Amino acid sequence: MMMRFGLGLLLATVAFPALADPLPSWNDTATKEAIISFVERVTDPASGDYVDPADRIAVFDNDGNLWAEQPMYFQFIFALDTFKTMAAADPSLAKTDVLRAAAAGDLGGVMAAGEAGLLEVVQASHSGMSIEAFQDSVRAWLDTAVNPKTGLRYRDMTYQPMVELLRYLRDEDFQTYIVSGGGIQFVRAFSEDAYGIPPQNVVGSYLDYDYAVVDGAPTVSQGADIAFIDDKAGKPEGIMRHIGLRPIFASGNSDGDFDMLQWSTAGEGPRLGVLLHHTDGVREFAYDRDSHIGRLNRGLDEGPGLGWVIIDMANDWNRIYAGAQ
Amino acid sequence: MMMRFGLGLLLATVAFPALADPLPSWNDTATKEAIISFVERVTDPASGDYVDPADRIAVFDNDGNLWAEQPMYFQFIFALDTFKTMAAADPSLAKTDVLRAAAAGDLGGVMAAGEAGLLEVVQASHSGMSIEAFQDSVRAWLDTAVNPKTGLRYRDMTYQPMVELLRYLRDEDFQTYIVSGGGIQFVRAFSEDAYGIPPQNVVGSYLDYDYAVVDGAPTVSQGADIAFIDDKAGKPEGIMRHIGLRPIFASGNSDGDFDMLQWSTAGEGPRLGVLLHHTDGVREFAYDRDSHIGRLNRGLDEGPGLGWVIIDMANDWNRIYAGAQ
Repeated sequence: MMMRFGLGLLLATVAFPALADPLPSWNDTATKEAIISFVERVTDPASGDYVDPADRIAVFDNDGNLWAEQPMYFQFIFALDTFKTMAAADPSLAKTDVLRAAAAGDLGGVMAAGEAGLLEVVQASHSGMSIEAFQDSVRAWLDTAVNPKTGLRYRDMTYQPMVELLRYLRDEDFQTYIVSGGGIQFVRAFSEDAYGIPPQNVVGSYLDYDYAVVDGAPTVSQGADIAFIDDKAGKPEGIMRHIGLRPIFASGNSDGDFDMLQWSTAGEGPRLGVLLHHTDGVREFAYDRDSHIGRLNRGLDEGPGLGWVIIDMANDWNRIYAGAQ
Repeated sequence: MMMRFGLGLLLATVAFPALADPLPSWNDTATKEAIISFVERVTDPASGDYVDPADRIAVFDNDGNLWAEQPMYFQFIFALDTFKTMAAADPSLAKTDVLRAAAAGDLGGVMAAGEAGLLEVVQASHSGMSIEAFQDSVRAWLDTAVNPKTGLRYRDMTYQPMVELLRYLRDEDFQTYIVSGGGIQFVRAFSEDAYGIPPQNVVGSYLDYDYAVVDGAPTVSQGADIAFIDDKAGKPEGIMRHIGLRPIFASGNSDGDFDMLQWSTAGEGPRLGVLLHHTDGVREFAYDRDSHIGRLNRGLDEGPGLGWVIIDMANDWNRIYAGAQ
C-alpha cells in the first residue's frame, strides 16, 4: 500500500506536469500567456532573463486589485461601522459635522467632506488602542460584515484569480508583498488568511505609533496622526523603506499605482507591470476613468506603451470571488 | 570515490550530531547554555514551549551588538569622511559651525554640538541622491576605510560569535532582523554580506524619501529631513510598523535597546532577551554605565531581574571579530 502510494505520487509529479495549470481561474488569453511567459523566463536558469530568487520581488496593490473596493474602500466601511458603535456608547465623540454624519450612518454626509472626511473617521475609529486589539476588532468585523452590493461578506470578496497568481509566484520562489494605500495594520489582520501573505510582507499607510507600559503591559498603540499615506509617489517610497529592493513584478488597478508600476518596470532586466481593468459590470463592477474610487485613467493611456499587461476582468477571468463559486 | 564521499557525508551527518557546535566562538558558559536551551525548547514540537516558525522572530541591534561602535558609530565616521570629500570639492557646503568643523576633519568640533551635530553631518552627507547611489558609496567606503583604534577595516569588525548566532537561529527556522538606531539604507548596503540578512529584514532610522523621474529615470532619493529615529521607544514602534509581530528573541547592548527587550520579553509564551556587556578592554573595548556611545545602565540594573541573559564578552567569547583571527 505504501509503495503504491509512493509510486502514484511519483507518477503524478513526473508524468503529468502539464495538467497542473497554476492559474485555473484565468481564461487562456494573451494576458495569462504574458504572465506565465514572464515567470518562466525569469525562473529558467538557462534563460538570459533569469533573475536570482533574492530579487524576485512582486508587489500587489490590495483594494480593487486583490479584493473589491465598491461601493467604497472596505476599510472606510469598517471605520464607519466602528465609529457608529463607539458614538452610540459615547455621543460626545461625534464632535464635528463629519463625525456626526458618521455616527448617524450618513455615508453621503461623510463623503461630502471628500478624502479628508474619510480620513477623519479613520483616525477617530483607529486611534488609541493597541495594535493587537485593533486587529482583533478588524477580524471580528470581517467575520460578519456584509457588502450591500453583493450580499457577500467583505472577506469573501477577494479575487480568486489573484489568490492563484500570488500562490503561483511564491511556488516559483517570488517573494510576494502587498503595497496598499489602505492601513498597514488593517491589511495585516487578514493578509495571511486571505492571501498567504504574512504581516511582514505588507506595506501600507500608517498612523503614528506610541510605545508605553500600559497597566504594567508594554504596548505599542496607534496614535491619532496619519504618519504616512502609501499611495501614488508614496508607493515607491514605501517599498524602498520597507523592502529596500526594486520589484521586478508590480500589479495594481488604479492611477494610485501608476508610480509603483512606472518605477518597478523601469529598472534593468526583465520586468512586468500588470493593471487590472474593472470591465465586468455583471459579475463585479465596471469602472475606470471617471470613478471616484480606484480611478484608472493615466494607466489606460500610458500603460500599454510602457509594455504593461492590462487584465480585462470580463474576458480574462472565469471566476471572480474566492469566497463564492 | 563518489560512493565513499557519499557515505562519509552520511556518517558525518547522522553519527556525530553532537560534534556540530553551532556556536564555536562561544565558550561553554551559562550564557551559551541559556541561548541554546531556549532555542531547543521553542523548536522542539514535543516541548510545551514550542513556537511556530512563523512566530520565531529574532531582532538584533547593530552598533555595538553585531559590530563594534568605538570610537564612535561607524556611520558617523562614514558621514564625516563623505562630507569632508564633498566640502573639498565645494567649500560652500560648509555653511554652519558644525559643517565647517566636519569639513576640517575636526571631530571634536562636531561632537561639541552633541547628537544634533552628528545628525547635521548625516543629513548633509546622505541627502539628495538615489538610494542605490548612496549604498554604492557606503560599500566603496567599507571596502577601504580603517578603524583608528584597531587598524582593522570597519567591515571586518563584525562580531564572529553574533554571526554564528544569527546563522544558528536561521538554521532553526527563526527569521532574523536587524533593528538599528543607524540608518536603514546604510545598514542594508552590507547586511547581506556581513550577516546573511537581506534588505527587507533591516529596520532602522530613515530620512524622508522622494520619488521622481530624474533625467528620464524613475528614482527614489533620500530627502533632507530625518523622518524616523529607530531608537528607544522607536524600536518597538519600528518593529510593529515593519514586521508587525512581537519578537520572541531580542538582542541588544545599550539602553537604547531597553524598550525593545522589555516589550519583546513581556509577551506570552517563551521569550529571551540578551544584552551584550562590553567587558573586554583587551580584545575589544570596555564600557557601560558612563559611556557616551552605547551607554548601558538601566539594562544592567533591571535586565537580570527581567530574566535577560547578559553576555560577558571577555568571558563568553573566545573570538571577537569576524574579519580577524
